[in-house]
Amino acid sequence: MPIRLDAADSDFEQRFVQLLEGKREASKDVNDAVASIIADVRARGDAAVVELTNKFDHANVALDTLAISAEEIASAAASVPDNIRAALQTAHDRIWAHHAKQKPEDHIYTDPLGVTLGTRWTPVDAVGIYVPGGLASYPSSVLMNAVPAKVAGVARIAMVVPTPNGEINPAILLAAQIAGVTEIYRIGGAQAVAALAYGTASIPKVDKVVGPGNAYVATAKRQVFGQVGIDMIAGPSEVLVIADGSANPAWVAADLIAQAEHGAGAQSILVTTEKGLADTVDAEVDRQLALLPKEEIARQGWDEFGAIITVCSLDEAAILANRIASEHVELAINDPQGFMGAIRHAGAIFLGHHTPEAIGDYVGGSNHVLPTARSARFASGLGVLDFMKRTSILGCDPSSLSALAEAAVTIAEVEALHGHGRSISIRLNR
Amino acid sequence: MPIRLDAADSDFEQRFVQLLEGKREASKDVNDAVASIIADVRARGDAAVVELTNKFDHANVALDTLAISAEEIASAAASVPDNIRAALQTAHDRIWAHHAKQKPEDHIYTDPLGVTLGTRWTPVDAVGIYVPGGLASYPSSVLMNAVPAKVAGVARIAMVVPTPNGEINPAILLAAQIAGVTEIYRIGGAQAVAALAYGTASIPKVDKVVGPGNAYVATAKRQVFGQVGIDMIAGPSEVLVIADGSANPAWVAADLIAQAEHGAGAQSILVTTEKGLADTVDAEVDRQLALLPKEEIARQGWDEFGAIITVCSLDEAAILANRIASEHVELAINDPQGFMGAIRHAGAIFLGHHTPEAIGDYVGGSNHVLPTARSARFASGLGVLDFMKRTSILGCDPSSLSALAEAAVTIAEVEALHGHGRSISIRLNR
Repeated sequence: MPIRLDAADSDFEQRFVQLLEGKREASKDVNDAVASIIADVRARGDAAVVELTNKFDHANVALDTLAISAEEIASAAASVPDNIRAALQTAHDRIWAHHAKQKPEDHIYTDPLGVTLGTRWTPVDAVGIYVPGGLASYPSSVLMNAVPAKVAGVARIAMVVPTPNGEINPAILLAAQIAGVTEIYRIGGAQAVAALAYGTASIPKVDKVVGPGNAYVATAKRQVFGQVGIDMIAGPSEVLVIADGSANPAWVAADLIAQAEHGAGAQSILVTTEKGLADTVDAEVDRQLALLPKEEIARQGWDEFGAIITVCSLDEAAILANRIASEHVELAINDPQGFMGAIRHAGAIFLGHHTPEAIGDYVGGSNHVLPTARSARFASGLGVLDFMKRTSILGCDPSSLSALAEAAVTIAEVEALHGHGRSISIRLNR
Repeated sequence: MPIRLDAADSDFEQRFVQLLEGKREASKDVNDAVASIIADVRARGDAAVVELTNKFDHANVALDTLAISAEEIASAAASVPDNIRAALQTAHDRIWAHHAKQKPEDHIYTDPLGVTLGTRWTPVDAVGIYVPGGLASYPSSVLMNAVPAKVAGVARIAMVVPTPNGEINPAILLAAQIAGVTEIYRIGGAQAVAALAYGTASIPKVDKVVGPGNAYVATAKRQVFGQVGIDMIAGPSEVLVIADGSANPAWVAADLIAQAEHGAGAQSILVTTEKGLADTVDAEVDRQLALLPKEEIARQGWDEFGAIITVCSLDEAAILANRIASEHVELAINDPQGFMGAIRHAGAIFLGHHTPEAIGDYVGGSNHVLPTARSARFASGLGVLDFMKRTSILGCDPSSLSALAEAAVTIAEVEALHGHGRSISIRLNR
């Protein structure tokens, strides 16, 4: 049973905070284990990567099969049915079209003093994309990570994907093929992150590592941060559905279930102004769960982390939504466009009754890699900017330098950086 | 003596890699110490913060003096001479004017299928700014961190600054006053980062922590990342001057010294096409160092980490510059505008002979918080975007949902996420 809260209850604040702060992941301390793996890969390179891969993934790779060959990619991709290829191509094209609009423009200008100022964007040279293997091995995630990198102009994309027991989903390789990713290694875990960050003889190092993974992958990303850039520390997925009397309870229930079926701590929360709707949705979730081929994971997720909260107004719903700062926020309400400004913290907002979150996972065009675990308070979903960086441009001529010199030298002196001051005053004709 | 390399030497590649990979910081492992401090602050809140502050900063703070009072800020600010106030105000206004141009625009559009897609930017609610105390206590850094946050629309800025032996530079408080920062705590180190990230009874938690600090601060930021956002892991500062025959050796020398005087691993590198210039600059640095009030730090930095590299062409200089990916790149050459496109990885580029890097530290208008330690390969300087986040907007109507449904459901099935597929198909009128 999901928890039921009403914002008018006297113990609401306390129970809501419990919901907010409740851990949804076993916070396994794998810091030391990951540090050893990284040190091992740095010291022994490929040999360590091969050994650790065979050990942790129960695989049987050798140095010359670490990379998945062009033939293997082509043959796996060709084995995927045409309707799946068409669907992934549609997804790719829509993701590309949307992300192309995110590409930033340089802006260089001269200010009234004659100082040249500006911002110039350039792509990262080489990016590593981590794609989980096994259960959560999603071809859509290959597209969501690779397409913005390609749009950004990243010259080299190295993809890693573990192949537990030697198995890989052919649709993963098809998605890579569609996205134009050709450098793929059958490795995963902290050893893959270490290889990408520090390089080995056969895996050249990259400049940034993106993509979700388990606790080992997340911890490895945290530890290599600085050596390379990383996107974010991904946590369990989540949805918040805000519904008013215009919502269809069966549709709302289906969306709550879609989130819960991710398992692994995924959380579905309904906030509604209608007590009646709350009851109907609750019953509908129960009814629809029974129809699901993989009922158990979704039911367990809903029972353990699900919540239904009744509030007296949409304004109150917005206040809670901003505190939850959910990865996904669905507005199953009459006027989603008018209301959306009230939601300040969300990875993505889905407008109206005909926008199930799942459409955004695949073919909407926006990115499905979004900030989880309340990090939408400060973080954004993956996008083109994550694969580019900004260089500041500054230029003075003798006149503008002279106009700025006194203020600059004064501050340099306050900071006791006399050499800074001298580097300015030495250029003045006095 | 700085090292001297020539790109034509047979051992150049090996020595250049040594230069690139040389550690400039004692990589003190403070992980465990920092983890204990964070755990202590989480467990005991203010009491731990007060205790640790008095212990590490040799200060004498009490719970009711953790915050610096409005009177104290006003009185310290009033004690600063007028010329310094004017200089900081000039810096503030120019930083504001430049950063105002970085504010991103929302972009929401409808695609040919009728799908609403968009990107919406909102400010982070609450930001913590870490300002180092003691030797490296720079009022300019207060402005560089606070102004972009203010421009972004951040409602609450909490500043922390340690006061070793109870002392604080009044210009720091003046800079805060000019920037409109009113919430200031006299705390530092890992305990300050922990208080900002997790909150205490008297210090409400923030959503993001920015600003440079020592190994404890950097490690604490790494450990709290995810709980809050962070800007970057700052390392020692660095400059790369690229000079051709048109460069003034005395000016180049002054700029190399300005960087070296930061100490703490700061690095100055000259890459030049002119062997004669290399020699003259080398001698000039030596001569000018002797004129510096604090000669010793700068000389030590130059001797230990400085480098002069001769190359046969500016193209070769660009190749090395992109491998170094320096925080600051000065183009002391004849045609800096024409050449700057060749520099793909740099925190900031300074154009021409009249743009010493120090002008950008203070009053140029661009930000002086820039990626160090080769992280310009993947990271950008601090800016308005660091204090905002992007929310994706997606909206379908019955017609566009219906047009996208088949592809989405197909991918959901490939990923064995049947609930995802059902959340789409349940909405179709079939």
